[in-house]
Amino acid sequence: MLEYHYKYKCSSCQNEFGADKIESNLIYLCPNCGKVEKNKPLSGVLEIKYDYEEIKNKVSKKEFLKKSIGRFWEYPYLWPLSYKQTKIECISGSQLNKLSMIDNPVISISFGNEGLKIFDDSRNPTLSYKDRASVLVAIKALQMGLKEISAASTGNAGSSLAGICARLGIKSHIFVPKNIPESKRIQIQSLGANIYIVDGDYDETFDLCLEISEKKKWYNRNTAYNPLTIEGKKSAIYDMFLSLNGELPENIYVPVGDGVIISGIYKGLKELLKLEWIEKFPKLIAVQAERSNALARYITNNKFEFKPANSIADSICAGAPRNLFMAAEAINATQGQVITVSDHEILEAQEILSKNYGILSEPAASASFAGFRKIQADKSILMITGNGLKDISSLSLWNSNPPLRSYNDILKYFYL
Amino acid sequence: MLEYHYKYKCSSCQNEFGADKIESNLIYLCPNCGKVEKNKPLSGVLEIKYDYEEIKNKVSKKEFLKKSIGRFWEYPYLWPLSYKQTKIECISGSQLNKLSMIDNPVISISFGNEGLKIFDDSRNPTLSYKDRASVLVAIKALQMGLKEISAASTGNAGSSLAGICARLGIKSHIFVPKNIPESKRIQIQSLGANIYIVDGDYDETFDLCLEISEKKKWYNRNTAYNPLTIEGKKSAIYDMFLSLNGELPENIYVPVGDGVIISGIYKGLKELLKLEWIEKFPKLIAVQAERSNALARYITNNKFEFKPANSIADSICAGAPRNLFMAAEAINATQGQVITVSDHEILEAQEILSKNYGILSEPAASASFAGFRKIQADKSILMITGNGLKDISSLSLWNSNPPLRSYNDILKYFYL
Repeated sequence: MLEYHYKYKCSSCQNEFGADKIESNLIYLCPNCGKVEKNKPLSGVLEIKYDYEEIKNKVSKKEFLKKSIGRFWEYPYLWPLSYKQTKIECISGSQLNKLSMIDNPVISISFGNEGLKIFDDSRNPTLSYKDRASVLVAIKALQMGLKEISAASTGNAGSSLAGICARLGIKSHIFVPKNIPESKRIQIQSLGANIYIVDGDYDETFDLCLEISEKKKWYNRNTAYNPLTIEGKKSAIYDMFLSLNGELPENIYVPVGDGVIISGIYKGLKELLKLEWIEKFPKLIAVQAERSNALARYITNNKFEFKPANSIADSICAGAPRNLFMAAEAINATQGQVITVSDHEILEAQEILSKNYGILSEPAASASFAGFRKIQADKSILMITGNGLKDISSLSLWNSNPPLRSYNDILKYFYL
Repeated sequence: MLEYHYKYKCSSCQNEFGADKIESNLIYLCPNCGKVEKNKPLSGVLEIKYDYEEIKNKVSKKEFLKKSIGRFWEYPYLWPLSYKQTKIECISGSQLNKLSMIDNPVISISFGNEGLKIFDDSRNPTLSYKDRASVLVAIKALQMGLKEISAASTGNAGSSLAGICARLGIKSHIFVPKNIPESKRIQIQSLGANIYIVDGDYDETFDLCLEISEKKKWYNRNTAYNPLTIEGKKSAIYDMFLSLNGELPENIYVPVGDGVIISGIYKGLKELLKLEWIEKFPKLIAVQAERSNALARYITNNKFEFKPANSIADSICAGAPRNLFMAAEAINATQGQVITVSDHEILEAQEILSKNYGILSEPAASASFAGFRKIQADKSILMITGNGLKDISSLSLWNSNPPLRSYNDILKYFYL
């Protein structure tokens, strides 16, 4: 059994730390240079590093491709968990099924002359991509004997953490900004979380959650801050790899707010390259909302400047993307790019994706398609990160309330 | 290849009809005795019959259990489709993936001292059980060259048909009663259907949809009326059978309104018995809302009497269950029973299922659990037939809007 065959490495100062030191002291950022500052990206985000040479010797690409999808405990050597505990002590095999993602997330659609693939994470247990991080964080909490977990969230991370915690019997505390869509708010509450609505934006909510969690000794799932959020989000790339039988697309469109999903995807790609299971990176194409475009500005100016964010796509609305630096590295290292789209373009993409392809996604998720419509790269996959029913107010913007008519009036309408 | 190795048999007069006669003439009910009457169950519902001896000789239980889940085209001998067309002409293999249900729908939860299983259909493509029927009906429409499909629906059948049709490029027409929950209404519209809101109840909506569809020559997916709805819904029993590796539970709790889901499940069970892949029936336990309890009254009095239905569980609200007789047979033949639950008990069950087990289901789906809480049978499976986000108004009944507080007020709340 592989136990603790991983380390934490600082993505800023490059120092490495033993897993035991970090985890037993509930450290989240780099002990040397880690810093949380108001309205700024985080410094010293930690990344988990495995012994890839060892893994390569133990598992071949061919053997790996026999695995199931959406159950990362089937390849425990790539996760920062105690394999023994995961299998035996914490949660039994049948319980793990409670947490699994969908079977085959990649589906093909036709758009124009191009075959286009959709990676559909809108059918995860709580209907968003965020379940990938929540599952890993929640299992880790169980293994560390922690009984309460907290998160700041625009909605999806929170409902995800609430749902996964409910399934595993853990208490969750969710801090959300006031502009949270009603469905997400009710989803969080219904799933048994304690919810705190902050009269402020996501950036303030993030800081408040950190402050309280530290005092209350809750395990914190703030995205980017807890290194397991990036790690959990890498699972999508392995699911894509499995689903496509080891062939990745040339371009991956990812909606970007805080920068954690794209960082997780990039982390997975780096691992696949180290394991020599792929030969080159697909290009990562970040799609941002026009008025929440910190990454786009950072790539252009090579400098971060805070600007309050605002977009209908609440899930990617972040003035100070906490994982900005890693997200920028993901773009640069994969020779990717950032595309910005307007709220109008997002809603238009949402409507087309829904009406013409039957994929009902929330605005942030629809941004992938909006980006693709703007710059159509060949052999592409769009990451669909959240279900449309999580925010019906956005759907109401392009669906007017139809008239209520009598039996006979409807017959007449059809000239019958 | 098996082509047309099935017949239609009338569940009332027991007459049999060739598939070609029924399908090429767009016949839905028994040509001898079929009847649609206002506020009455349908007479002459047709059931599809295969050559089970032939299937038994071709496929063993062991071979069958190697199949995947949620993809009924992998065992084409049990579906009324042209195998050749399904595989080659109509929709390609990669497109079929668009329609697939979730990988492993059975998850275990603990309740009291009993291990209890959940069959989770709330993560299907449009988040309800109804996708099982819509997928089959829509593929059939493609194979018959029909380009428009209609359905009367309390919400789920309609959003399901809209979503599946959007994925396959078919036009859908959905008739809904005025009390449809907002999320379901918006889901139907967003998925590109033409929606018609009828100033009346489901029973009237059903009749109106039939009348118009017949005139417009739309393929009709009204539940029970189109025999493929029952047939599509049987797929859950095969998925359960596969998911549990050939072992069915002793009791299955099914929410019942129109009686089609339970009839589909019963149809699947009858087939498994004929194929000798199971030795006896599990008991089917129908759960009805107190004020929509036509099946319960029919079982007791052996007589149908129309009574307008009313319940918070809109999906099982039907004064005249169109598939009443088959549903009653399902109860009697499996030595099952009917349990009625109040709206209050349904909401209570919804809350417990969500808060304690992380399964956010709509009221009708929560009725399964409400029934189980009332009469707890051993070794049971609960059918969860729809996602909670399809009706957030019901969730609002037990989740009050939390206070909006400033950063400092929330700190103070925690004595910090």
